[in-house]
Amino acid sequence: MSTFGRARGVASNFISYTRQPSILRMALNGERSLLITNGTMSCQGNGVSKRGKVLSLETMNPHIRVMEYAVRGPIVQRATQIQKELEKGVSKPFPSVIKCNIGDAHAMGQKPMTFLRQVIALCTYPALLDDSNFPSDAKQRAQRILNGCKGGSLGSYSESIGLEIIRNDVAEYIKRRDGGLESNPKNIMLSAGASEAIRVVLKMLVSGEGKGKTGVMIPIPQYPLYSASLAEIDATQINYYLDEDNAWSLDMAELQRSINEARKHCTPRAIVIINPGNPTGQVLSRQNIEDIIKFAYKENLFILADEVYQDNVYAPGSKFYSFKKVLHELGPDYAGQELASFMSTSKGYMGECGLRGGYCELVDIDPDAQAQLFKAVSAKLCPTVSGQAVMDVVVNPPQEGEESYELFQKEKKNVLDTLALKAKVVADGFNSLEGVTCNTVMGAMYSFPNITLPQKAIDKAKEMGKQPDLFYAEHFLEEAGVCVVPGSGFGQRDGTYHFRMTILPSVELIHDVMDRFKKFHANFMEKYGDGESSLNAKM
Amino acid sequence: MSTFGRARGVASNFISYTRQPSILRMALNGERSLLITNGTMSCQGNGVSKRGKVLSLETMNPHIRVMEYAVRGPIVQRATQIQKELEKGVSKPFPSVIKCNIGDAHAMGQKPMTFLRQVIALCTYPALLDDSNFPSDAKQRAQRILNGCKGGSLGSYSESIGLEIIRNDVAEYIKRRDGGLESNPKNIMLSAGASEAIRVVLKMLVSGEGKGKTGVMIPIPQYPLYSASLAEIDATQINYYLDEDNAWSLDMAELQRSINEARKHCTPRAIVIINPGNPTGQVLSRQNIEDIIKFAYKENLFILADEVYQDNVYAPGSKFYSFKKVLHELGPDYAGQELASFMSTSKGYMGECGLRGGYCELVDIDPDAQAQLFKAVSAKLCPTVSGQAVMDVVVNPPQEGEESYELFQKEKKNVLDTLALKAKVVADGFNSLEGVTCNTVMGAMYSFPNITLPQKAIDKAKEMGKQPDLFYAEHFLEEAGVCVVPGSGFGQRDGTYHFRMTILPSVELIHDVMDRFKKFHANFMEKYGDGESSLNAKM
Repeated sequence: MSTFGRARGVASNFISYTRQPSILRMALNGERSLLITNGTMSCQGNGVSKRGKVLSLETMNPHIRVMEYAVRGPIVQRATQIQKELEKGVSKPFPSVIKCNIGDAHAMGQKPMTFLRQVIALCTYPALLDDSNFPSDAKQRAQRILNGCKGGSLGSYSESIGLEIIRNDVAEYIKRRDGGLESNPKNIMLSAGASEAIRVVLKMLVSGEGKGKTGVMIPIPQYPLYSASLAEIDATQINYYLDEDNAWSLDMAELQRSINEARKHCTPRAIVIINPGNPTGQVLSRQNIEDIIKFAYKENLFILADEVYQDNVYAPGSKFYSFKKVLHELGPDYAGQELASFMSTSKGYMGECGLRGGYCELVDIDPDAQAQLFKAVSAKLCPTVSGQAVMDVVVNPPQEGEESYELFQKEKKNVLDTLALKAKVVADGFNSLEGVTCNTVMGAMYSFPNITLPQKAIDKAKEMGKQPDLFYAEHFLEEAGVCVVPGSGFGQRDGTYHFRMTILPSVELIHDVMDRFKKFHANFMEKYGDGESSLNAKM
Repeated sequence: MSTFGRARGVASNFISYTRQPSILRMALNGERSLLITNGTMSCQGNGVSKRGKVLSLETMNPHIRVMEYAVRGPIVQRATQIQKELEKGVSKPFPSVIKCNIGDAHAMGQKPMTFLRQVIALCTYPALLDDSNFPSDAKQRAQRILNGCKGGSLGSYSESIGLEIIRNDVAEYIKRRDGGLESNPKNIMLSAGASEAIRVVLKMLVSGEGKGKTGVMIPIPQYPLYSASLAEIDATQINYYLDEDNAWSLDMAELQRSINEARKHCTPRAIVIINPGNPTGQVLSRQNIEDIIKFAYKENLFILADEVYQDNVYAPGSKFYSFKKVLHELGPDYAGQELASFMSTSKGYMGECGLRGGYCELVDIDPDAQAQLFKAVSAKLCPTVSGQAVMDVVVNPPQEGEESYELFQKEKKNVLDTLALKAKVVADGFNSLEGVTCNTVMGAMYSFPNITLPQKAIDKAKEMGKQPDLFYAEHFLEEAGVCVVPGSGFGQRDGTYHFRMTILPSVELIHDVMDRFKKFHANFMEKYGDGESSLNAKM
């Protein structure tokens, strides 16, 4: 089909296509560009006869060169390109591109929480504190935050670990969340989104060489922030596979296998758990969390609990348990277990990705090491103070009886109820099709269906030098206009194929997405399947 | 004197006192804390008999352990403590603490630019676009930025290198600044303050081991972001000394000496220049910049031009020249020279530190390497979008004829004129005293006076195991309530002593600071000097 022409042409070189498009372009021109560079230089009479660039693919930081970040990979760039083609009137078999590649709620049309934005606007432009159109509780929150800022301005630096008043509110929030378990503001560090805090904690843990080098256990499938960060800081990535047959839970035998193998070539020092799961959407049971903590304790591992989706739990019977609370309830036998828990303003019901709010709670870290961690962030000056203020609203929302309480609750409920509905629509839709299975989307913002690809498609993809799930996802984009991320970007068991699709488009659009998927998948199976059952839905 | 008791007690251990206070506390308790940890662990029957912490001073990332960041060091923590003591009614020989340690204008009472905050408030809470109290040009700017955001919200992620519309505006700004020299938005990367971009460019440059390891030339005195970042990424810091006798300019013989020595043990690949200078306040002449570029070209060095103070030029006859413009005007002989120029919203006349806006322009970088750099930032998702919007206002301010033009110009002029006045007051004040000399504060936000310390004070400091300039700065804080940063935090020639003091307090406060300094310095000289001329002012 002609709509595939461009992607196919580009994708004929696998290595190139796994990179960003701008790199791709350069990779294709690599030799020529090098020649030009040398040519220019050798013409110049500065005494350096063959002066090349100081910074090049050959001389650059090798750890950055190997890192990848699939969520913003080439398929996303291609989606943007197709959207632009549509806008220019190019004919496609679909009217619009629907981007289901990234957990970016506002980009998909979700409206900001009114109260949250009122507070931030008031903090930004305090003249509005005299405006009678703003509710009194929003003004009170804003004034309180401004009182905590030096010079009463969001424009002054905060402490490097964040404003004290907001760290206090975060600690109160955690205490409420965990049923009264104490949280000390001195162990809270605010950050620009969760990613920044995750990176700095990982960085703290890196040391050693050879067999002594730090290894970090991460789930497969994983959120590629982890693989990218570990590559960048030159730590060893240790894969443990989530159990797809058991709702993507963590299997203790698999954790043991993973660490035993890793010990042959590195020193495992930390384990990352993402709960609720990204890209897999599971919500871990209390028992599973207990087992993981016991495992980490036994194996002397620092726990990084990525809990940014703690508000995103949809499946009946599922509940979010924080690692901190479960650890505490395991009692003194597990006292001293080191834990860092991460939270973000980008997810949940607020979806404030662009404003970059986040925090990290450190539990039972060696005080010297914690002081070093706080020193490490001091050269970054401070996380965005308006992002910190966003986090303050999230952890300190309007209370019953306050002017904005009802609207806040209504908006929050609306977002979460709609996400729950879409989680079900998407999983049910996938499971109604031959060759597609999808675990219940218990939480987070993603479905991660398993696609049984026909051998002919796998062979065709390999012939083109690309991952079969990328081949499939490219077809989905080019034929149906839906942008998803191939499972290979997150990792998956060999021989299985998935993609990650967010549940963030509106209910109407999600139905559109599923309709497009059904048609596309049927066409794909007809083209590459054995021609028998592949076109029939299961029910 | 009794006010020194606390600081002296603490400071009797030099190593402890050069760290953050929280580390200090732990360092004093180091052994005990370790015993407790081991004790707790060995009581627990988990099969790991002596389970210590995974993360400790011994096991942590050694590169983070060695890094230091003086601007937020212990003397600043002590200043905060003294302020709290004053608030509690503790008697001190001064009524208030004046913090002159950090370039944080709003913290020192500078008011935000009205137009800037209006635009950000409008972007944050678009319902205000219907508010007749906001000027039309602010609304137009805000709507334009929102049109560039996915979903029309600051809460959606931008491209990792920043919103396209803002990168376009940055390129236009640079073109205007440099007299029409083209700037390509594709070479612009927005960042959370300049620091983030500086770190990622430095990180790109790190490779090799032993003699092959990347060395980066930095000025001494320097802004400690550089030494801290180089320590963290394990690059070799190469010091070149600024010429204090020639207005802190760069001396070519010194650059040559520095690189020649460095080549014996590492591979110099980049040079950092801070212009206008931090902490030294110089504004480089055009000739000096030409010479530096020629040097970098000859020695095959990547240039990092920290130009965040480009709006802060005060001295008559001084002018800011961008490295990019000078490089271009040097003509084809120097074509291909790699350059990264950094800018921030934290400095200038706006002083929006907490909102974290910044950009980097990349000039003549190898396209493959630039693509890798952009890939490296993709895992960070994006810099704060509201910080990006702040940068947009800075590069795209109200134009003549627009509603907010006059107020904007008035506010800007007021800030810059006042800074120029204070720059003169401070330098003149220092130069009026025996044993104190201070170069003209030509630009930036800092004075960096040279103090001739009496031998007795130097001996006393050394006896206490601390740097003489720290000893002096501590006395200044404890006796006069003024917080400055010792020169040793920035680096200085052996045997010279300085401190960095911002010119950010209000005119009234700056006079107060200088009065306090004169009295303090006289007392100090009386106590530690030879008892003759030290009390007499020069004039």
